[in-house]
This record gives sequence, structure tokens and C-alpha cells, in this order.
Amino acid sequence: MSGEREPYRFDRSQELFARAAAVIPRGIYGHLSPVLTVPGSFPYFAARASGCRYTDVDGNEFIDYMCGYGPIVLGYRHPAVEQAVADQVAALDCANHPAPVMVELAELMVELIPAADWVVFVKNGGDATTFSLLVARAHTGRKKIIRVRGHYHGVAPWCTSLGHGGITPEDHLNLLLVEWNDLDGLQAVARRHRGEIAGFIATPYHHATFADQVMPAPGYWQGVVELCRTEGIVLIVDDVRAGFRLHLGGSAEHFGFRPDLTCFGKAMGNGHPISACVGRRELMAAASRVFYTGSYWFAAAPMAAAVTTLKELRDTDALARMRAAGRELAAGLREMGVRHGMEVTVSGPEAMPYLRFTADRDLYLTQIFCAEVTRRGSFFHPHHNWFLCAAHDRGDVAETLTHAEEGFKAVRGSYARHARQ
Amino acid sequence: MSGEREPYRFDRSQELFARAAAVIPRGIYGHLSPVLTVPGSFPYFAARASGCRYTDVDGNEFIDYMCGYGPIVLGYRHPAVEQAVADQVAALDCANHPAPVMVELAELMVELIPAADWVVFVKNGGDATTFSLLVARAHTGRKKIIRVRGHYHGVAPWCTSLGHGGITPEDHLNLLLVEWNDLDGLQAVARRHRGEIAGFIATPYHHATFADQVMPAPGYWQGVVELCRTEGIVLIVDDVRAGFRLHLGGSAEHFGFRPDLTCFGKAMGNGHPISACVGRRELMAAASRVFYTGSYWFAAAPMAAAVTTLKELRDTDALARMRAAGRELAAGLREMGVRHGMEVTVSGPEAMPYLRFTADRDLYLTQIFCAEVTRRGSFFHPHHNWFLCAAHDRGDVAETLTHAEEGFKAVRGSYARHARQ
Repeated sequence: MSGEREPYRFDRSQELFARAAAVIPRGIYGHLSPVLTVPGSFPYFAARASGCRYTDVDGNEFIDYMCGYGPIVLGYRHPAVEQAVADQVAALDCANHPAPVMVELAELMVELIPAADWVVFVKNGGDATTFSLLVARAHTGRKKIIRVRGHYHGVAPWCTSLGHGGITPEDHLNLLLVEWNDLDGLQAVARRHRGEIAGFIATPYHHATFADQVMPAPGYWQGVVELCRTEGIVLIVDDVRAGFRLHLGGSAEHFGFRPDLTCFGKAMGNGHPISACVGRRELMAAASRVFYTGSYWFAAAPMAAAVTTLKELRDTDALARMRAAGRELAAGLREMGVRHGMEVTVSGPEAMPYLRFTADRDLYLTQIFCAEVTRRGSFFHPHHNWFLCAAHDRGDVAETLTHAEEGFKAVRGSYARHARQ
Repeated sequence: MSGEREPYRFDRSQELFARAAAVIPRGIYGHLSPVLTVPGSFPYFAARASGCRYTDVDGNEFIDYMCGYGPIVLGYRHPAVEQAVADQVAALDCANHPAPVMVELAELMVELIPAADWVVFVKNGGDATTFSLLVARAHTGRKKIIRVRGHYHGVAPWCTSLGHGGITPEDHLNLLLVEWNDLDGLQAVARRHRGEIAGFIATPYHHATFADQVMPAPGYWQGVVELCRTEGIVLIVDDVRAGFRLHLGGSAEHFGFRPDLTCFGKAMGNGHPISACVGRRELMAAASRVFYTGSYWFAAAPMAAAVTTLKELRDTDALARMRAAGRELAAGLREMGVRHGMEVTVSGPEAMPYLRFTADRDLYLTQIFCAEVTRRGSFFHPHHNWFLCAAHDRGDVAETLTHAEEGFKAVRGSYARHARQ
């Protein structure tokens, strides 16, 4: 097929996967499971990465639009970040006490994030979201949490739907569900449970999987802020996925509001394992009453990575560049769709786009398209929002658009059959 | 005071702590919180570490008997481990796919751990313990979990007692509590809730805080295994803290039994952030039905650290050496106590001892002792079990015993008043 690498093989990926499947449930589990992309068109194991590109174990190179599913915000193996990590590791990493860099990082985050008067560092993004619930409950003395249907907050039992293994109805006893962007629905639930609701948690916009991303409706967040203030509900923004890609001060700043608690992760350490919950002064006493800790949470190297990552984002045009690259990519894809007579919807913020064939009934067209583009050398995920990073330049986007051109051609034959009339 | 460093100061630690307290709840939270040691005698921030020693931010050096609260099993900045990490980082760490080292590590663990047919990698130890509950529930279709009062399994709401901020009674609805080493009590609970119990989780021995450690009573684990088999209960060992310090095959091997699921963490990566749940073949299908993932869980560098750490433990006399050092330390402390006319109890396994003055009513004597020893240069925790590592040699222990000698002298004045009659 034109533009496809010859021979295009995943032999070593498949060989490793067969070995993995013997000793690891599902071989590769969770969000990296091959069943979540398109079998046969995506690699399973990677060998090396640099900038915005990586090479799989079969030697195929990809321009990467997933960035490790978010963490890589400056590019893989960013020299300044890796140097800061190496310097810190040469002194101290995991130890009996934190290193001074913990204070430096906390002060930096309080300076950069208007909704942050204090910071608690954890490891997983889900450690931060669960912590935020505990703080909201400790602060209010109430139990119930309102969350939005379909918003992803991690894999703790309260986050995971009952259809998955091991989750009990008791895990969800104190949860109330609302729909995204439905301020009336939220108000109704808040009034029905007046005095019982500790917190409302949501992502800053709806980064759905298997569907278009949905930005907040005009006035939505302002209405939420007012409702939470009136009802004494702690407003929690889960910015783990989007944080530092929309705005250096947190995505809430981008949307013009100030939450009580905000959870960060992913981009904050450019791939190094660290997450955080930040909050307003009023919540600090409650945060102090929550017992929360982990063996690796005070490790200094990821904190050094985060200090350098956040400073790079602050002191360079990294954010502007990744937004520009995303804008160029989205414009190119939309234009190309029109040219091929197939409308595509590119949804979400500039640095976190997701493409879907607008008339696609079952994501089949989107799957073919992303698979074909990926086989040609640009990793497009068919079911999950993509991520730009500061290492993507115009040349990368231009090269990707040549891959996309072939992707559109590959979809053409199936379009009429699979497009919703 | 004799043997004390002059001047012995924590100025820089205190200065950093004051800054930390302005932007971090409690300044330093969790298990590293200064309130858990003795204010004024322990540093708050560390600057560098190597082997079994570290230096705090004021330049005080300590022979370390906490080892980062467990993770450091070969010594800080172990050359082979750090080289493996550096090599992996130069290629790939956090990415869209795992690296081949994930398969290598899973195969190695299945080879080394008799109770492991498969492995799931996570980040925190608590990720592993929560996962084990989900697997037990998915496997049995039952909800209830029996746990042992006082056993530490992490900070998820099911782990944390109701006295802490943010925990609701609903978080504990499916938990049943038993006492450690009480096989009759466990049998009674299991029979009373016949057919409802998914799993029994316990640490391989009782590593209490603020109390002596308690080894399993003769026949205890064998009785537990039989009961679990009879009642169809999944037997889970939380070996996060003790794993790879008692036996290379997991602490259950040391105690002569085979659990269904075992959780590891800490020592497995010599300080690099990785934990795991391993299980028997029969549980693999259930494990596959649990949705469990994290942004950093497939990162390759900590897996490379774990491969090297486990191979070092397998191919060298590291385990024997840390046990010998622990044995020598315990014998020296006991003998010294007798010589000073103050009986001490050194409890727990050789590589994880804890010292308490036997007649201490309120841990006051233990606190004075540990504080004085620490001020002289050997970090002894007054409330938590200690950890030996393979970098402790006879010279280190001998030096520590000279610090301990001064510690015993310092306790003498308070002994009569605080010893239980």
C-alpha cells in the first residue's frame, strides 16, 4: 500500500506479547492493552524514544501523538529535565526524608497556580483524586461526592464502574452521578441532598473515550462555582490529564474559575512519576487531618523533574508551540477530510485533540483511519484523546499530514457503508 | 554530652521545614512526618546518601537503619542498579508501550517466587493490596475481606482507620477484623460469614508500630491455609514491607506456606518506584477482569531497577549479609542492655528488627534511647521497625554499637521512673 513501510512488521512485539501473556494477566493490561487500539496495526512494545518520536521493538519509528498518554509534555528525554533528574539521583532520591527540592517544587506550584495555596505530592493521578475526596469529607464533615458520568478519575474502586471485576455496590454508596455540562441536573442533585454533599469532582472539560471531547458550556463552570459556594460543597477539578497543556496555572484558569482543590499529574514531571493535589488555604487544615503517604512519594528525582518541567513551561514558548502544532494538525485534518469528501470532527483543546469521522456509526472508520496513519508512522489513537508536546514542530506535523492523506484514502472504500446517513 | 557531635544542629532542616509548613499540610506529611520521631533529635531533610549512610541538609551523617523505610535493600545508589536505570532511561522510560524489560521482570519474578505464576506491576504498595482485594472479589464473586487489626496495607480508605480525616464507615462495610495470630477467631469469623468471604489479607508477620513485632505462632499460617482452602477464601499476603528481606521467594516461603496472592513493593526496586501483585494460576482469569492501570505503571526504568535488584539478591550473599548484620546488631543491643541493667526486647526478623525497652510504660525510654543514638550518628526509629540492607557491614554495626552505648547511658537517669514495675 502506498506510503506504507515495507516490510511493515510487528514480529518482535508479537513475540514479546506472547511471552508476556504467559506471566501477566492480559499480557499488557490497563490503558496500554492492545485491545484498546487496533490489533495488527499498532506496536505492543517500544524500544527507545526521543523528542516527539519513538521506535518500537521491530524498528518502526512513529511520530507520537500520545506522549505516553500525557506525561511527555516537553518531549521524550528532554535534556534539561533528564539532567535535573541525574543530578538529583547522584545526591538523593528515595530516602528517610524529603530533599530540599520538595519545598522548591511546592513553592513553585503555589506561585504558578492561582488556586494553589498548598500542595500534597503523591505518585499516581488516582492518589490525588482519592485524596481530594478525603479532604472534602474532612473539611465538610459530609460523605457524599457528586461526580460526572464518564469522567475518568483513576482506578480506585470508587472510580471504576460496577461492570469491572471486583467492584462492589458498596464502593459507590456515597457517590451521586450527574451528566457533563448539565448545570440544572447538578443543582437538582445538590438541593435534593442538601447538607450531605462533601464535594463535586469533574475534569475541566469532558475528555471522553470512544466519543468526541466536550468543552464546558458557556457559564457552566461559573454556575458550578456559585452552586458550590452556596451549598458549601468543595469544588474539585481533576486536571491530571489536561493540566499544564491548556494553561500553566491549571486548566481552571483557562476556563476562568478557581476550584477549591485541583489534582495534577502526567505533564507535571515530563514522564517522571509524580502527581499532586493542590488546594486553597481554607482546606489546608482538613488536608492535614488526612493520613496519606507512600513509600516513594517523597522521592526527590521526580520532584526535580517537575521543577524543571514547570520552569521550562513557564520560561519558554513550549505551551504556545504545542498549541500551534495541534492547531495546525487539526486544521490540516479537517481540510483533508473536506477534500476527500469525508467530514471529520476534531474535538477538544488544541494540545489535546481527538479525531472522529463525524458520520461514523461505530468508530470503524476512525479505527481504519488511525490504524493506517499509525502504520505509516504517526501514532493516532482511535479511541482516546491525543496529546501534543513541545517537541512537535511544523515539520513533524507536515510529515504526519502525509501519513493522514494515505489514511483518508484507506477509509474511502468503507465510508459509504459505515457513515451514518 | 560524650560522643555527641559538636555542634549538633538541625538549623537548615528546621529552616526548610518552616518554609514547607507554609505550602504543604503538616510541612512533611505521612510516615515521614517529624511528629512520628522525636522533635529536635532527628533531621527533617536529607541531602545525599550512599551505601548504608546518608547526610542531612545540616551536614550530619547517619548510619541508616531505616533504608528509606524499606525500599533500600542493597544500599543507596547501588552501582549496578543505578547503571541499569541509566541505561534504560537513555532508551525508554514512560511511554505508550512497555519496554521488553517488563517481560523479563515478570519472568524473573515467576521464577524466583514459588507462589507466583503471574505478575501485575503497579506503583504504590497500596496499589497492589487494593488490587489483591479486587482479584479476590472477582474470583470468588463474594464481597467481604477479613483483615488483621493493626496490619498496615496502605492509605486507601479501606486501609485507614475511621479516626483519620475523610474516612467514612461505608469505606469499611465489607471488612471483618480479626486479631493477629488468633486462628480460632479467624475460623469463627469465617464460619459465621460462610460463603460471603472473598479474601483474607495479612502481613506475613505482625510488624506493628509503637509495639513489639510479633512473628506467626507455630502452625498459624498452616491453619490459615487449610481454613482458606476449606472455605474457598483467597489467601493474600501483604509482603510489601517484608518482601525480599526474609526470603528471596517471598516471606511466605520463609514461613513455609503458599498464598494465593502476594503483594510486593519497597525492596523490589531498591528505591525505584515499583510494586507488584503476584498470584497463582487459578487467579489469573480473575486478575484479567480487573481494570487497573496508571500513567507511570509501565515505565521501564523502575522495572530495570527491579530486575537488577532481584538478580543481585539472587546471585550474591546480600540477604545473608543483611541478616548477619541485623543479628549482630540485635545481639549487641541485648548484651548492652543487660550490662546496663535495662532489659530490651529486640523483636522481628533479623533484617527488620525493632528495639523497645521491655519495661517501658509509654515508649518514653525508647524515644530517649533512639533520639540519643540518632544524634550520635545511627538512625534508630523509636516507633517503627528498622531495616537492614546489604551495605551494612560489621564495621558499621560496631560503630553503631558505640552510639548505642551512649544511648543506654542517656536512658539510665529516667529508667527507674519510667520502667513498669
